[in-house]
Amino acid sequence: MDDLLQLGKQALASQSFSVLVGAELTGYSRGWAELTIPITPQLKQQRGFVHGGVISYAADNALTFVGGSVLGPAVVTSEYKINYLRPARGTALIARATVVHSGKTQAVCRCDVFVLDEGKESLCAVSQGTIARIGQSSESQA
Amino acid sequence: MDDLLQLGKQALASQSFSVLVGAELTGYSRGWAELTIPITPQLKQQRGFVHGGVISYAADNALTFVGGSVLGPAVVTSEYKINYLRPARGTALIARATVVHSGKTQAVCRCDVFVLDEGKESLCAVSQGTIARIGQSSESQA
Amino acid sequence: MDDLLQLGKQALASQSFSVLVGAELTGYSRGWAELTIPITPQLKQQRGFVHGGVISYAADNALTFVGGSVLGPAVVTSEYKINYLRPARGTALIARATVVHSGKTQAVCRCDVFVLDEGKESLCAVSQGTIARIGQSSESQA
Amino acid sequence: MDDLLQLGKQALASQSFSVLVGAELTGYSRGWAELTIPITPQLKQQRGFVHGGVISYAADNALTFVGGSVLGPAVVTSEYKINYLRPARGTALIARATVVHSGKTQAVCRCDVFVLDEGKESLCAVSQGTIARIGQSSESQA
Repeated sequence: MDDLLQLGKQALASQSFSVLVGAELTGYSRGWAELTIPITPQLKQQRGFVHGGVISYAADNALTFVGGSVLGPAVVTSEYKINYLRPARGTALIARATVVHSGKTQAVCRCDVFVLDEGKESLCAVSQGTIARIGQSSESQA
Repeated sequence: MDDLLQLGKQALASQSFSVLVGAELTGYSRGWAELTIPITPQLKQQRGFVHGGVISYAADNALTFVGGSVLGPAVVTSEYKINYLRPARGTALIARATVVHSGKTQAVCRCDVFVLDEGKESLCAVSQGTIARIGQSSESQA
Repeated sequence: MDDLLQLGKQALASQSFSVLVGAELTGYSRGWAELTIPITPQLKQQRGFVHGGVISYAADNALTFVGGSVLGPAVVTSEYKINYLRPARGTALIARATVVHSGKTQAVCRCDVFVLDEGKESLCAVSQGTIARIGQSSESQA
Repeated sequence: MDDLLQLGKQALASQSFSVLVGAELTGYSRGWAELTIPITPQLKQQRGFVHGGVISYAADNALTFVGGSVLGPAVVTSEYKINYLRPARGTALIARATVVHSGKTQAVCRCDVFVLDEGKESLCAVSQGTIARIGQSSESQA
């Protein structure tokens, strides 16, 4: 297995919340990250769709990982925006993120989130945001 | 207990993911919503802070609830953006959302997310987004 | 000339502010819009680069046009976000917008803004937003 | 006149595009900036309202100025999002920006844009974004 993917899987496994959600890093190389989340009943909202918070988590975390692929592992998402496109119902969420532009301390990235249902993928959310090396974002590292 | 708060608590309890995260609706009236999430180990990332995905969930869901307080219960978050301000460490997250402007089918809302640590609140994220009545967003309701 | 492009050029010519900025619609078809703005001294800021407000205008307007290509001409930009990637210096700005997803009353679109300098294009900003049919956004149409 | 306001007025006057738009800095202190733009025919779109690009310019520039009030004058807007709330018609746009949080190299700020019509102000757009010291954003300073 590729070194970066191996390191990424370890990082994801060390995030308790990612373990709770059941996220898997299914692709990771320089400028590219893919997170897959099997859809379980506990990830849903009251109408039977995947909760928006899960989709946001997927986008946010895929953005962080892809930013880390060019900036190094000590990164955080500084900010992002997301547009939800359709309700997500199916067997898995797949978040795919790419780097649009990277500087020395920050990268601007995009992530598309798909839902897999009966073997067919549909785009269910799109996002765009900034990933920063820790200590270089607007975050105070208290 | 206030009727709207009671209805909101039922709605939140019917979201499996909100139950998984442990969110509580601690304030709900026309144009105002407050979600509180006790910080547990399973909500954290690898550096011991609350995972950004939890903060996003809190903002997203508080935005949806506050939008629903003026538009009625059948609403979704169409889109939002969030800026993270500082790492969140403490005993609880508190997301407070207000309505900036509402039309017939959509509302623009803001949400500030605080972390409570040793009795002191710190602002850890700010967000802004659009909540839409179901069937009135850009979402296809497949 | 293609009908949609012809109609788009007329719409742009009827926007006083677009005339003031000097924007030209250089591509327009279903799901695709391209605005070009020759860079003149009056579009700059104090360090000799194109003012961010011009880049925002370009993104915003290209988003509106591309949304209109699928929703019909009576549309407005409801919201968008933009990330600036590098200072823009050169001879022209080129904003290229596409539709990511469209429903009955709204469309989610993306726009990339390039600067042309000595024959070479560089990406200088990326944006993402929602375009709505008039009367269907969160806007009150007072 | 206050020193910061005086310096800010000089900075604004050195932006050709701000002169073209007719923007005035009408308030400027640490953590606070107000830009006023008299509404002239050349700032409009085809339906007689202020062009969204002007509102975006106002928000973007007020955000930059308010960020500069805490970070120093060499700043740029890295990114922002804006929601339009209602069509703007009247005699002036007034953009008021505040600092939500500032670190060493970046600040997260909000800006509300009002339109003044017959002596009455209405909120017509809300925005939120990140301002960075030059050399500290994701921008390459080519």
